[in-house]
Amino acid sequence: MNSSRKVCNHPLDRLFHPRAVAIVGVSKNSESQGYMYLRQLLEFPFPGPVYPISIEEQEVLGVPCFKTLREIAGPVDHVISCIPHHQALTLVEDCVVKGVRSIHLFTARMAETQMEDRLDLERQIVHRARETGIRVIGPNCMGLYCPSVGLSFRFSLPREPGHLAFASQSGGNAADLEYQGAGRGLRFSKIISFGNASDLNESDFLDYLLEDPETKVIAMYLEGVKEGRRFLDLLRRSDGRKPVVLFKAGRTKAGSRAVISHTASVSGEEALWEAICHQFGVVSVHSMEEMADVLLAFQFLRPSTGQRVLLMGGGGGGSVAAADACELEGFEVPPLPSEVREEIRSFAPEVWSLISNPMDASVMGGIETMVRCFQMGAQWDGVDLLIGNSSAIWLLDYPKSAERHELNLQFLINLAREAQKPMVIFINSGDPTTPWRVEAVLKAQERCRDAGIPVYPNIRRAARALAHFTRYHRRRANPKEPSGKS
Amino acid sequence: MNSSRKVCNHPLDRLFHPRAVAIVGVSKNSESQGYMYLRQLLEFPFPGPVYPISIEEQEVLGVPCFKTLREIAGPVDHVISCIPHHQALTLVEDCVVKGVRSIHLFTARMAETQMEDRLDLERQIVHRARETGIRVIGPNCMGLYCPSVGLSFRFSLPREPGHLAFASQSGGNAADLEYQGAGRGLRFSKIISFGNASDLNESDFLDYLLEDPETKVIAMYLEGVKEGRRFLDLLRRSDGRKPVVLFKAGRTKAGSRAVISHTASVSGEEALWEAICHQFGVVSVHSMEEMADVLLAFQFLRPSTGQRVLLMGGGGGGSVAAADACELEGFEVPPLPSEVREEIRSFAPEVWSLISNPMDASVMGGIETMVRCFQMGAQWDGVDLLIGNSSAIWLLDYPKSAERHELNLQFLINLAREAQKPMVIFINSGDPTTPWRVEAVLKAQERCRDAGIPVYPNIRRAARALAHFTRYHRRRANPKEPSGKS
Repeated sequence: MNSSRKVCNHPLDRLFHPRAVAIVGVSKNSESQGYMYLRQLLEFPFPGPVYPISIEEQEVLGVPCFKTLREIAGPVDHVISCIPHHQALTLVEDCVVKGVRSIHLFTARMAETQMEDRLDLERQIVHRARETGIRVIGPNCMGLYCPSVGLSFRFSLPREPGHLAFASQSGGNAADLEYQGAGRGLRFSKIISFGNASDLNESDFLDYLLEDPETKVIAMYLEGVKEGRRFLDLLRRSDGRKPVVLFKAGRTKAGSRAVISHTASVSGEEALWEAICHQFGVVSVHSMEEMADVLLAFQFLRPSTGQRVLLMGGGGGGSVAAADACELEGFEVPPLPSEVREEIRSFAPEVWSLISNPMDASVMGGIETMVRCFQMGAQWDGVDLLIGNSSAIWLLDYPKSAERHELNLQFLINLAREAQKPMVIFINSGDPTTPWRVEAVLKAQERCRDAGIPVYPNIRRAARALAHFTRYHRRRANPKEPSGKS
Repeated sequence: MNSSRKVCNHPLDRLFHPRAVAIVGVSKNSESQGYMYLRQLLEFPFPGPVYPISIEEQEVLGVPCFKTLREIAGPVDHVISCIPHHQALTLVEDCVVKGVRSIHLFTARMAETQMEDRLDLERQIVHRARETGIRVIGPNCMGLYCPSVGLSFRFSLPREPGHLAFASQSGGNAADLEYQGAGRGLRFSKIISFGNASDLNESDFLDYLLEDPETKVIAMYLEGVKEGRRFLDLLRRSDGRKPVVLFKAGRTKAGSRAVISHTASVSGEEALWEAICHQFGVVSVHSMEEMADVLLAFQFLRPSTGQRVLLMGGGGGGSVAAADACELEGFEVPPLPSEVREEIRSFAPEVWSLISNPMDASVMGGIETMVRCFQMGAQWDGVDLLIGNSSAIWLLDYPKSAERHELNLQFLINLAREAQKPMVIFINSGDPTTPWRVEAVLKAQERCRDAGIPVYPNIRRAARALAHFTRYHRRRANPKEPSGKS
C-alpha cells in the first residue's frame, strides 16, 4: 500500500498492511466502540476500503453498511469484531469463507471471566482460526494502531508516525502511553493492545518488533507470559540490539489476583522478572509514567554511557533536591574544579563563591552571569550529561512572571541545541492550580518537544529516565560488565 | 489586631501580629523584591500601616516613601529588609532606635557565601539584635506568610487561611508547597521561610508551631539543624500531639554539598534522620510533592488506622497497577467475600465473575452496575479505606468524552461524601497534552477540592500519602507498637 516503506519479511508484518478492513458490530451510537473504530479509520484516514457491518443500520457516518462479511465484494484482510462473545464463532466462519488474514476481537468476556464455557469458546475460536491460517488479536483488547497506514483505536493518538513500538496486554495502558508522553513528543511505529493473547501473544509481537524496520525501541506492558521459554529466548537472542523497555505488572499478591480477572494471565515472581531484565539488558519500569519518561530519552537523546551530571538552574532548595535525586539514581554531581571557579570569579566577583554544581540560578544576580556560567559548565569536560531546571515554581507567581519563565526556558533550549552532550530539562509542573499557570507549563512543554528535548515534570523522573538510558548504553558498550542496579 | 483570634502566649506569636510593617529598600522596578513585598501587603491586604523606605523614590504604588526608618512617626513592629548586605548593620541600629520587634532579612550573601567577612557580618547582626531584644528571620529567606493577618511573600499564596503550618529553610520550597497543593485545597496558618536561621531557627519555629492554636499540622523543610539536641527534645516532648511532616534534604554527598552554598547548614546522616523520624512519630517525606500529598490527607480526612483498601474504578491495567501500588505501600487489598460476590451476581449475572477488589469499572458494562457495586463495596466492613480511580486516561480521548469523565467523577465524589470511611480519589493527569484535557483535569481537581476530598495524580502518590497518614494514626493509637517502615 505504501510503496516507499521499508521491506519487512516477518509474517506478522501483513497484520499492519491490510488492503481493506471490516468492522463488525457498528451502530450509530457515538459512544459504542464499533462506531468509534469506524470514525477513527475514516478520520486518520485509513486509505483502503473500510466496511461497517451491522444488522440494524443502512449506513453509519455516511458509509453503507453490510449485513454480513460475506456480502462484501472485494477482499477483506483485517476484521475488527465488536459483537458479543456468543456471536464470535459465527464470525470466524465468515472470516474463513472471506479469506480474512487477521481478526481483532475487541469482543471480551471470554477467558478473563474464568468461566468454563468462555474458556472453551476462546479455545474454539483460536483452534478454528489457526487451522485456517487466520491470526487472532485478543480477545478483550483495543487492537492495532499504526499511523503510517492509518490504523488506530484512539482519536487522540498522533497522526505522525515515529520509531517507538508498544505491545500491551492492557488496552488502558496502550492508551495511557500516549496520555503520558505524546504531549512531550513520543511518536510511535505501532501500538498493539493484545489482551488475552489467545493466539498472537507477547512473544509473537516481540519477535516481530525486533525485525520491524520501522521500530527502533520496543516497549511492553505484560501481566504474564504465555510462552515463557520462547520469550526468554527472544530476549537472549536480541540481547540489547534494540532497547526493550518492560513494565511487568502484578508484582504483589493483590496485583497478581487483579491480573487474572483482567487478562486471564498468570503473573510470576517479582524477583525473577528483575533478574531476567538484568540478565538481558531489558529496561525494567514500574509505571506507565516511568515508561513514557524512558522512551522520551531513547527517542530524543544521542547515546551516552556517562555518569557525571551538571545541574543548571532553579533555586537553592531545588538544587539540593536535584543533587540528592541524581546521586540516589547513581549519578555523580561533581563540584566545579578550581580553574572553572576562578574564571567565574573573574566576571562574577560578588557571587562566585556560591556557584558550583548544582548551579543555583537564584544566587547569580542576573541573567548575564547565568548565561556565562551555564555555557562554561556545559563545555566543562568533567561532566557527560546536562540537566536544566526551568524552575517554574518560583517564576510562576503571577501571570506576568510567566514571561521570565519563557526567557529562561528559551535560553536552556538554545543551550541544549548547541551542547555536545545529552541534555534534558525539567519543569516542575505542580498541581494544575490556575489556567494561566497550566497554560505556561503546557507551552513550555511544547517548546521542548518541538526542539527535540526530553522534558520531565520533576528532577526525580528526569534522573530516573537518564539512569535507565545510560545504563542501557553502558551495557551495550561493555556487555560483560555488570550494568548496575536495574 | 484581630480581636477574635485565639490567644497564644508563646513569645514568637508577636512576630505574626505586627501593628505596622516597614519595607526597607523599595523601588519602582516591579520585578524587585521590595516592590513585590509592598504590593503583596497592600493587596492581601495587611490592615495596619505599611511604610516603604527608599532613598530614591518619593512614592511607590501610591504610598509615600520614607528616607529612613527613624523618620516614621508611629510604631513599627516588623521590618522587611531588601537592601544589600553591607547596609544591614546600619539598618539594625535604626531598628534599635525605633523599637522594632523583628527584622526579616530578605537580604542575602551572608554566611551562605562561606566568606569570612560575611560570616562575621551575620554574627554581628545577630549579636546586636539579640542584645536589644530584636528577633531576626533569615538572612537569605522569603520571610512570613500569615493569611489571617495579611502577611505574604507570594502573590499566589491563598488569601483564605487554614490549619497547616510550614517552616522552610528554603524560600523556593516555601513557595513550592503552594504550587504543589493549593490547587488541591491546601490551606495554611503560616508559612515561614527562615533561610540561614542566624537567630530564629527550626527549633524556635517548631516550639512555636506546637503551641500555635491556629496550627493543627506542622510541616518542615530542613537542610540542617542549628540546635540538634533542642530539636530532638521538642520532638520528644511533642511526641505526635500534632503531626509533624519533615522533608530533610541533603541526603547524599552531592546534596549535602549543595546545602552548604544554599543556607550554610550542615546536613546530617540519612539513616540517623530516618531513625529520629521513626522514634518520634515524625512523617518523613522526600520531596515537596510528597509533602503536599501527605498534608492533603491530614487536612481533609478523618483519622484512620486502617490498612484494608477498596479500589474502585478504572480499567484492567490500571487496576492491576493500583493493587500493586497499595500492597507495596503496606496495604491489603482483600478480595470480595463470597456473600458480596453472590449479591453482585444477582444483579449482574454477565459480569459478576470479573468483579472483585480492585473493582475494574471497564468490565461492568454500564453505569448502573458500577453504582451498585461501588456502593456495596464502600459499605462492606472488610475494608477501612476507599480509593476511587477517576480514570481520565481512558475517558479523555476526545473533547466530548470529558463529559463522561465528569459524570464518573461526580458519582465518586457523592460516594466519598456519604461514605463512613476515609476516601481519596486519583485522576491520572498525564502530561499536559491539549488544552481541553488540561481543562478537564483542572476542573476535576477543583471539584474534589471543593468537596473536601484529597485528590492525587496517580495511585502511587495516593497510596503513599495514605500510608503516611494511617501509620501516624496507628502510632497515636498505640504508641508502643512499632509504626512500621517509615
